[in-house]
This record gives sequence, structure tokens and C-alpha cells, in this order.
Amino acid sequence: MHGINPHLSARARKPTPSVEELVNGILSGNRVLLSQAITLIESHRADHQEKAQAVIDSCLPHAGNSIRIGITGTPGVGKSTFIETFGLRLIEKGHRVAVLAIDPSSQMTHGSILGDKTRMMRLSVHESAYIRPSPAGDALGGVARKTREAIMLCEAAGFDIIIVETVGVGQSETAVHSMTDVFLLLLMPGAGDELQGIKRGIVEMADIIAVNKADGDNALAAKRAKAFYANALHLFPPKPNYWIPQILTCSALSGDGLEEVWQLILNFQELTKNNQSFYTNRQEQAVFWLREAIDERLKKHLFDTPSVKERFLEVQRQVAAGELSPFKGAQMIVP
Amino acid sequence: MHGINPHLSARARKPTPSVEELVNGILSGNRVLLSQAITLIESHRADHQEKAQAVIDSCLPHAGNSIRIGITGTPGVGKSTFIETFGLRLIEKGHRVAVLAIDPSSQMTHGSILGDKTRMMRLSVHESAYIRPSPAGDALGGVARKTREAIMLCEAAGFDIIIVETVGVGQSETAVHSMTDVFLLLLMPGAGDELQGIKRGIVEMADIIAVNKADGDNALAAKRAKAFYANALHLFPPKPNYWIPQILTCSALSGDGLEEVWQLILNFQELTKNNQSFYTNRQEQAVFWLREAIDERLKKHLFDTPSVKERFLEVQRQVAAGELSPFKGAQMIVP
Repeated sequence: MHGINPHLSARARKPTPSVEELVNGILSGNRVLLSQAITLIESHRADHQEKAQAVIDSCLPHAGNSIRIGITGTPGVGKSTFIETFGLRLIEKGHRVAVLAIDPSSQMTHGSILGDKTRMMRLSVHESAYIRPSPAGDALGGVARKTREAIMLCEAAGFDIIIVETVGVGQSETAVHSMTDVFLLLLMPGAGDELQGIKRGIVEMADIIAVNKADGDNALAAKRAKAFYANALHLFPPKPNYWIPQILTCSALSGDGLEEVWQLILNFQELTKNNQSFYTNRQEQAVFWLREAIDERLKKHLFDTPSVKERFLEVQRQVAAGELSPFKGAQMIVP
Repeated sequence: MHGINPHLSARARKPTPSVEELVNGILSGNRVLLSQAITLIESHRADHQEKAQAVIDSCLPHAGNSIRIGITGTPGVGKSTFIETFGLRLIEKGHRVAVLAIDPSSQMTHGSILGDKTRMMRLSVHESAYIRPSPAGDALGGVARKTREAIMLCEAAGFDIIIVETVGVGQSETAVHSMTDVFLLLLMPGAGDELQGIKRGIVEMADIIAVNKADGDNALAAKRAKAFYANALHLFPPKPNYWIPQILTCSALSGDGLEEVWQLILNFQELTKNNQSFYTNRQEQAVFWLREAIDERLKKHLFDTPSVKERFLEVQRQVAAGELSPFKGAQMIVP
């Protein structure tokens, strides 16, 4: 924390604005008040949570008017460069772009606000962009919930393109998939080998696969990778929304292919809005998060009792050792 | 229910044997007592459940000594013929084979005990085999739990090969995957098209893919399908247990390829036992079912309150309509 401007520090200690001030600020597109509201969402303090919920309640009628894009890819695939170049391009078209990161593990490498802003320098300073890293030091469930609520506030603040980013190797992709409309997987040139780092199941989630770094010496390898995936994608059964996953090459460095990625996202949006799956998917996602949140609260109530937690660990040990059936074990925890 | 023998009917009304009689019967390999114990597992009566748990407790130390094989494939792929021919072949080798069906929807087509036994006539009458269809008229969670407990009893009864069968189009494959050691997917000849009927995610679960009906006019198509899948399987990242999914053709009708399927299962078992993943996987599965069962019991406690159920439906409607945030909604259900 060395070198922090004492004035900034003092400002951070100012009392937070009222619910009304926050809501009005967000609805007028004020990024500072948007940030303060998201900080409330991320806070563990009960009074902050209550205030955050009041802000969300007021913003909810103004949320939803966006396309939510999930982007994943292993470290080294050029994700930050892609999002920056892609985001700036969309801003040029008149859009407002919010970027939310969801992976808790990313905290270890570049999770500080400074780190995240540094890696998307040009985008982060643009007035039509808003970049927010993952809340630090939290379990995935919590991060996912907070990110989902942050999406709503960003939409209420007029951001019509929401990018939710993960690193593609953790537990967070299913969560991202459950809060976005379209899922973009970035891969590196090469045929098959680069999948070593990708978590199982992710390729199948992808609506669009972009082989990045299709420039210079990699151009040929990228083309080969594209052909390989194009063939292999036939392995997957059709998606319930009738979208056929598309694959292309791009270069975040040169900008080649990024226009095509955007066109595919527009095509996806058109198809799924026409056949209504865009809307039913959002409804199902909302109900999914309702059920998840109910589960989470039930378990929290249960495991917040220290004696239960202790008993659970002992039961878990016995079940893993085959000394106790899982269902008998569950009865011992929840009579 | 016409034509039922009144003597059978009278016998069914006899009081069930004691826990001790059931346990002794199961441990001596008595299939009638095994069936009666599984019927207790499937019963909704509290006293039956209690008795079933006591039986399971006593059988647990004798369970686990088997290979649990999940088999899935769409209707028409020849699953029954495959299981019958395959099962008889294993019995010839000196094994004892239990077949459990898990898919609740299978009730609609062939779910009666008579139906299930008819479709595997030769296997079902063999004294080294035991065939048990899905419990009827139940939600998946319940069926899965009951099937998992039935596996333990079958193992305690000396069945060293447990086949758990699903139809590959429902919600049950993940459940089966979470209670078996090795997962076999049966496909029909053709390249890609036959996947239309297969649920997304199933191909990725498969440890072994067998293209069945590779006989007569289909032989060539089956070979083409095998080549296609062999290529396409590279799309999937490696499994954490280091097993590389294998693909082959077979004919349940002629028996061709069934020996190779068994050899692959033995290879799988050897590899995963050598690298310990066989055992850690079973431990993880047990803990998974413990957590699932805790979740289920918590939710049952909650939703068994009629007022909560009513409130949930209203909250769910509002959340789906975007009028209420999922997390606020969850708070309203679980304060």
C-alpha cells in the first residue's frame, strides 16, 4: 500500500452516499457512484448488504438492456489484449462497455484494481468503459453472486455491453455461463494441444470459438487449429437455442477478425431473440440463481452452527472411508 | 393388474423378514431377500426407510468389491441386447452380474418388472444375474439415491459387476456418472447425425464409446463412425485420471467386439487402480452424495412447509419476470 495518495485515502473514508444518491448516480451513468454501489455489494457488513439490496431493487427496472458476453481463455491466450481492442472497437460504434472479472484465482496474478486497470490501460481510461476486477478473497459462490448483481447495476448505468471474464481453468465458467447470453472461448493456435489447459466441458459451452494470435508466424497454425475445431465441433449435439457454434481466427494485436467476432455475436443475438430463447434463457438463469441463493442460504444457516460444522467433517471422513453411507450421514447432519 | 396369481399376491402381503434375516440373506447371495431389501429402500414409509438403513449399515462393510459400469445410449441403439449378451459373457467368465436401471422416464416404455425382465430374458433367468428396473413414479433425485443404495446391497450379495443403465436422453446421466467407475456410451452407426438424440455433455463423460450394430449392412457405416469419433475425441481435454477414452465397433447381435469392450474395462480398471484414481474417485463420489443428500434434506424441510412452497412459486414468478433480484428473492424464502 506504499505511495498511495493521502487525499485519495481520505476520500475513501468519507461516508458512503445515500441509497437515493447512489441510484440517481447510477441511472445518470456516474461511474464513481456505480463503483461505490458495487463496493457495497461486495461488502460483508450487514448494513452495507441491506443498502446494496435497496440500490439493486431501485435499479432492477432499468437493468437487462444489454448483451452479456462471457469470455474465457487460459492465461497467455491474450485475453486482456482481446478485451481491450474489442472493447475500444465497440465504443467507437457508440456502445458503452463494462468489463467484470469473475475468477477468484485471478487475484493471485493480477487481481488488484491497479493490476487489472494496467492490463487494459487504454480501455480503462475511456469514459464509455467501466472495468471492475473480481472481489478479492472470497469463495466462488459469493463472487458469482456479486458479479451477477454488478451486471444489473452496470446495465442500469447505461452500459449496453457487459463482458464477464474468467481464466478458463477454474470453477467459475459454469457460473459465467449461467449469467451471460453468449459465451466466447479464446484459444491459441495449435491443434488440440492447447486444450490441455482448458477445463473439461468448456468447449461445449462455447457459442463462438476464436483462435487468437493468428498473426505473424502463427497464422498457419491458427488456420489449422480452426479447421480442426470446425470439424470436431460436429461432435457436439445441437444447442437447445438452435445456434450452431462458430469458429474463426483473429488477432487481438492487429485487430483482424474482431469485426467478425462482433458480427457473430450480433447474429447470435438476432437468432436467439427471434426464437425467444434469448429471453427464456435469461428467465431460466434468474430462477437458477434464485435456487442457488436459496441453497446457499440454507447451507449457511446450517454450517454457521460450529457444532454442525465439526460433525460434518467427521461424517465426511467416515463417508469417504466407506464406513458410513452418504444418506445415513446426511440424516446425521439434517435429522 | 389382470391375471396376477392370487398366491403370489398373498405372498407379497406376508410380513417382510427381519433386518437380520435380510442381511444374512443378502450376504449369502439370496436374490429374493436382496429384492425385498431393495423394495424397502424404495418404499416411502418411514418404518421401511429405517429398516432399509439398518440393512445398509450392516451390508456396508461387505460392499465396494466390484466394478461399477455405467451404460447409456438412446432408445434403439440396442442397449438391452448389448447388456444381455455382455452380461452372459461375463457370467461365463465366472462373474456375477447385477443390472440396475436408473432412468425414471424408462417407466413409460418398459419400466414394469415384467417388461424389463422380458427384454433381457436369457440374462434375467440366470442364477448369476440380478436385474432390477427403476423404482416407478419418483423424482430423479430419489431414484438416484435408491439406485446408489441398491448398488451397495448388490455388492454385499456378491455381485462383482454392477451395470447401471440409463437411456441417455434424460437428466440421469450425471447421476449415473457419479455412482459408477467407468462410463460406456453406446452409439449407432452413422457419423454425427445420431448425436441428435444424445444429451449434451454425455460424449465427454464417456470412457469407452462403442458403435453398436456393426453388422450386416451397417458394418461400413460403423467403421466410418468410429473413425469420425476417434478423430473428434481429441477435442476433449484429458481426463484427470489419465485414461484416454477409447472407441470401437461392436455387434451385440453377433457378439463381435464385446470381448474388446470387456478388455478395455479391465485396462481402465488397471490404470485407475494403479494410479489410485479408482479409489479417490469413489471417495469423492461418496462425499458428493453426502452433500447432495444434505441439500435434498434441507430443501425438503423447507418446502414441506406449504406456506413456503406457495411463497416460493410467487417469488419464482417475480424473479423470472425480472421484477425481483434472485438474491432478494432467496432472502424472502430463507431469511
